[in-house]
Amino acid sequence: MNSPVTGPVIGVVGGGQLARMMAPAATALGVELRVLAEGPEVSAVPAVRTAPTGDYTELAALRRFAAEVDVLTFDHEHVPTEHLRALEVQGVAVRPGPDALQHAQDKLVMRRAVEKLGLPNPQWAEVRSPEELVAFGERVGWPVVLKTPRGGYDGKGVLTVDDPHAAQSGTAAQWFERSRSADTGQGLLAEEAVPFSRELSAMVARRPSGETVAWPVVESIQVDGVCDEVIAPAPGLDPEIGRAAREAAIRLAQDLGVTGVMAVELFETPGTEAGFAVNELAMRPHNSGHWSMDGAVTGQFEQHLRAVLDWPLGGTDPVAGAAVMKNVLGEENQDLFAAYPEAMAAEPRAKIHTYGKSVRPGRKIGHVNAVGSTHEVQRLRRIATHAAAIVRDGGDHPGSADLTARAVDAPWGAVPAAQSEAPLVGLVMGSDSDWATMRAAAEALEELGIPYEADVVSAHRMPAEMLEYGRTAHERGLRVVIAGAGGAAHLPGMLASVTPLPVIGVPVALKTLDGMDSLLSIVQMPAGVPVATVSINGARNAGLLAARVLGSAPDVAGRELRERLREFAAELAEAAHRKGSALRDTVSRGADSQD
Amino acid sequence: MNSPVTGPVIGVVGGGQLARMMAPAATALGVELRVLAEGPEVSAVPAVRTAPTGDYTELAALRRFAAEVDVLTFDHEHVPTEHLRALEVQGVAVRPGPDALQHAQDKLVMRRAVEKLGLPNPQWAEVRSPEELVAFGERVGWPVVLKTPRGGYDGKGVLTVDDPHAAQSGTAAQWFERSRSADTGQGLLAEEAVPFSRELSAMVARRPSGETVAWPVVESIQVDGVCDEVIAPAPGLDPEIGRAAREAAIRLAQDLGVTGVMAVELFETPGTEAGFAVNELAMRPHNSGHWSMDGAVTGQFEQHLRAVLDWPLGGTDPVAGAAVMKNVLGEENQDLFAAYPEAMAAEPRAKIHTYGKSVRPGRKIGHVNAVGSTHEVQRLRRIATHAAAIVRDGGDHPGSADLTARAVDAPWGAVPAAQSEAPLVGLVMGSDSDWATMRAAAEALEELGIPYEADVVSAHRMPAEMLEYGRTAHERGLRVVIAGAGGAAHLPGMLASVTPLPVIGVPVALKTLDGMDSLLSIVQMPAGVPVATVSINGARNAGLLAARVLGSAPDVAGRELRERLREFAAELAEAAHRKGSALRDTVSRGADSQD
Repeated sequence: MNSPVTGPVIGVVGGGQLARMMAPAATALGVELRVLAEGPEVSAVPAVRTAPTGDYTELAALRRFAAEVDVLTFDHEHVPTEHLRALEVQGVAVRPGPDALQHAQDKLVMRRAVEKLGLPNPQWAEVRSPEELVAFGERVGWPVVLKTPRGGYDGKGVLTVDDPHAAQSGTAAQWFERSRSADTGQGLLAEEAVPFSRELSAMVARRPSGETVAWPVVESIQVDGVCDEVIAPAPGLDPEIGRAAREAAIRLAQDLGVTGVMAVELFETPGTEAGFAVNELAMRPHNSGHWSMDGAVTGQFEQHLRAVLDWPLGGTDPVAGAAVMKNVLGEENQDLFAAYPEAMAAEPRAKIHTYGKSVRPGRKIGHVNAVGSTHEVQRLRRIATHAAAIVRDGGDHPGSADLTARAVDAPWGAVPAAQSEAPLVGLVMGSDSDWATMRAAAEALEELGIPYEADVVSAHRMPAEMLEYGRTAHERGLRVVIAGAGGAAHLPGMLASVTPLPVIGVPVALKTLDGMDSLLSIVQMPAGVPVATVSINGARNAGLLAARVLGSAPDVAGRELRERLREFAAELAEAAHRKGSALRDTVSRGADSQD
Repeated sequence: MNSPVTGPVIGVVGGGQLARMMAPAATALGVELRVLAEGPEVSAVPAVRTAPTGDYTELAALRRFAAEVDVLTFDHEHVPTEHLRALEVQGVAVRPGPDALQHAQDKLVMRRAVEKLGLPNPQWAEVRSPEELVAFGERVGWPVVLKTPRGGYDGKGVLTVDDPHAAQSGTAAQWFERSRSADTGQGLLAEEAVPFSRELSAMVARRPSGETVAWPVVESIQVDGVCDEVIAPAPGLDPEIGRAAREAAIRLAQDLGVTGVMAVELFETPGTEAGFAVNELAMRPHNSGHWSMDGAVTGQFEQHLRAVLDWPLGGTDPVAGAAVMKNVLGEENQDLFAAYPEAMAAEPRAKIHTYGKSVRPGRKIGHVNAVGSTHEVQRLRRIATHAAAIVRDGGDHPGSADLTARAVDAPWGAVPAAQSEAPLVGLVMGSDSDWATMRAAAEALEELGIPYEADVVSAHRMPAEMLEYGRTAHERGLRVVIAGAGGAAHLPGMLASVTPLPVIGVPVALKTLDGMDSLLSIVQMPAGVPVATVSINGARNAGLLAARVLGSAPDVAGRELRERLREFAAELAEAAHRKGSALRDTVSRGADSQD
């Protein structure tokens, strides 16, 4: 018998679902995962070989556990900082270490750190009395948000205070009372109620040697203060804001000396200078990163293990372009497994993750991932939402029409509003008078359900904006540009000279020359800068050609679009047959009447 | 404390790496996995909570183990059939059951079943003596392959017999001797040495209710009879053969009543009627399916658990289009974990899977997956091969130049040979005289490393072949068609009318009319059937436009191609600057000389 080869031993303090989901990654990597469990029946216990029960608030229990592992990490942030310092003194590799972890344990410490780094904070203050809270509210405007610096999560420990009266009574008054009697020397955290368009999350991982990587910034949809759904990458996010948010998260990780995975929860704040503000930090794998288990080259749990072992970090790209995560929160159905067959049959693409927890209303008991291309985000949302609803409700769930409505309602005519499906095709024209011709392209795209943006960009009247449009097109997520122009029609070729995307040119006929001037201006490009030219006034074909380009992609969305195009071709053939038949009828009636 | 909610209990007989790799899937699904282990130190033991040691050849041990589980399945096929029948009689859910399993346990039984179903077998015979083997060899031609019906795997129990002398001496003679003395009433299996171009594998999963699904057929590269590398889907596989192979595997699964995952190993046999022949069956997750762990919507281990539980089966599509699996076979390096950091740093996209086994030469100790688009299969092979080599050799590995050479050497001029990268662009022209113009498209594709095929397809001289080419283009994996034609140039438009792919038209100038006839024939298509027209004789731009279309895809390969296109644009700009500078020099020298 050969002895098995096991790698380093990682100890996780806490046996919740985060510890549980580290187990599959540990098995693949061949490292041993041990869990210090709150009891024999917590989520992580069935997933690991060794899970002693112990109280993480007792230093002795932590010491016993740490003695058997190579590195210590966490399922949650509630281990007392002083215990972690004691373990570090003893030589235990605590990752993340207490100096970093306190920023996730204490929101006042976090606010100070964010401020020190010059990263975008909401307005905030430490308040020690109802009077100080009133003063803060009078300064930044009501309502304000009052937080207990420690122990809050999923909406707990967070209170919206509407006015001076509420600041001096009810829950707020109780919190101040409790804070004073706890005698921690600390006040409460007051924050302005940031006007935000949505919540984002920037997740990073850092290892002790310093390497730090970031996943794409995701959109996190909260319901009643609890994460409900995550869309990765965040649809329609301004690439500048995405880059800045990732950089902010990387700077925080580096400056605070984080090891392991960290989530930086953000508000998207259109109109402010940064475009976002830091909401909270979590120094561990996070709900907003669950999509990465199936959707990224490296999932957050594998990455966390690599990071705490100081192993090189893995790729963070979405493996198929996009992913959606939907939480399963407990409701009536107590028997998840009885609902599985229906959920699996309804959504074969759904990836179901179970936490092994008993069902209580509102409790996170699992999640569902769906992975696909950026082109099918709404479909992924429907898949994940539908499967999660069946598991939650015990089957017989009608689906999720609300999401469909949201996708269909996406406005067009400019860049679609944030949170609707991001445009894949940029439809531009040299003059608004070209719209009469170019609208046929828009209609073709709409018929095929392809999101697009439309704009007037004149090569001659606004050359700088035109070049900027072309240069940034691919960065903004566009995958094809359709450009229509007439006369000395330079727009398609000029755009093609600054974008790596395929540019489709539509020669628009003006009053003279029957569009031949436009055609030759567009089609006769020099070698090196191609324009895909369609017929004079052939805007409909430009839209269909854009669809073929998107349908050429090697993913599921591409295949589906190809299918739709084939159906479309079949309809075209049928219409031609009908017309032929009508013509034959006419001709034969004509022949009859001549008889 | 809430009691955890665990689903059904699955018992796996055997604790090898296949049982081990079921554990992460079980954790995600929330079902309990127990292993009947050969000893306390086998591969699966560290990955599961409960792994009693027991001898699977003893019915009593199987009975004890089965009493505690809801369903029994297997890590290997070596459990005696009579024990499984005894367990079934007792009411144990044995999946796959003994009636199915015997086809994977006994190659003679398998050959008879394949024959009965009319699926393509090589020529074979049961031979009971050297004389019968000689007679078989004289009939089908030497060499022949001699197999022990039971117990062989990874090249063991398989002997190539070159001539009548070898059939009557050495190993062959010993095998006949052993077979006679074992007195099983069975002979040995003799098979013709099938001339095959490569090995394929068709994997399916079936659940007791009957639902059966198939993954794409993969290419399996064997070295010394052991699986070395798997490419999914099999590059350049004739879609008809792929479909027939999947159907054969599904029929086998249904007819034999398989439950769980089954691999049907195949030979690709060009020139034969079926185009493939059945080699072996494995009724369990299989090495040729490891790619699916990271590369398919549903990995084979999750699928196996769903199948044996009779839960609906999951999607089998490659999640990003393609995947490559490279086995790590033991060599000198004994400390895999010391090599991990280098492998991970070198290949951040590599997914390393470790079996927790001690290293012995040639032993399967792990594998590496790489996932990406069909466009980057050669890159995925390099990633997986490089990471596996570092783990195997303990670091300091130079990379895998052999693969690079293989990719670069891919012939063009027709469909590339099997095993080279599948073409993404179809380059067709109405006449071979168009090649002088159209070669510029081929050159542009070659410069950008894009695989393509080139052919003459005349709309007027071979209309049926032309339509067939267009209709099947997307099925054969092409993603763009470039068509060049001159005069009454119908080829691009006709192809566009039968393919959902984008068609790029190149107007080729003939002797008269300067190509204006070709241009208008190509560009002025009716609404509904677009052709992306480039300038007259603009074949180079057609190649570059095809690259932009491929670069528009939302995957990693697309992004990389976009990057190359941007570098290309920068080179173009630099060349233009150089020419400008040279021209300025000339002009200023001219001005000087005039002074």
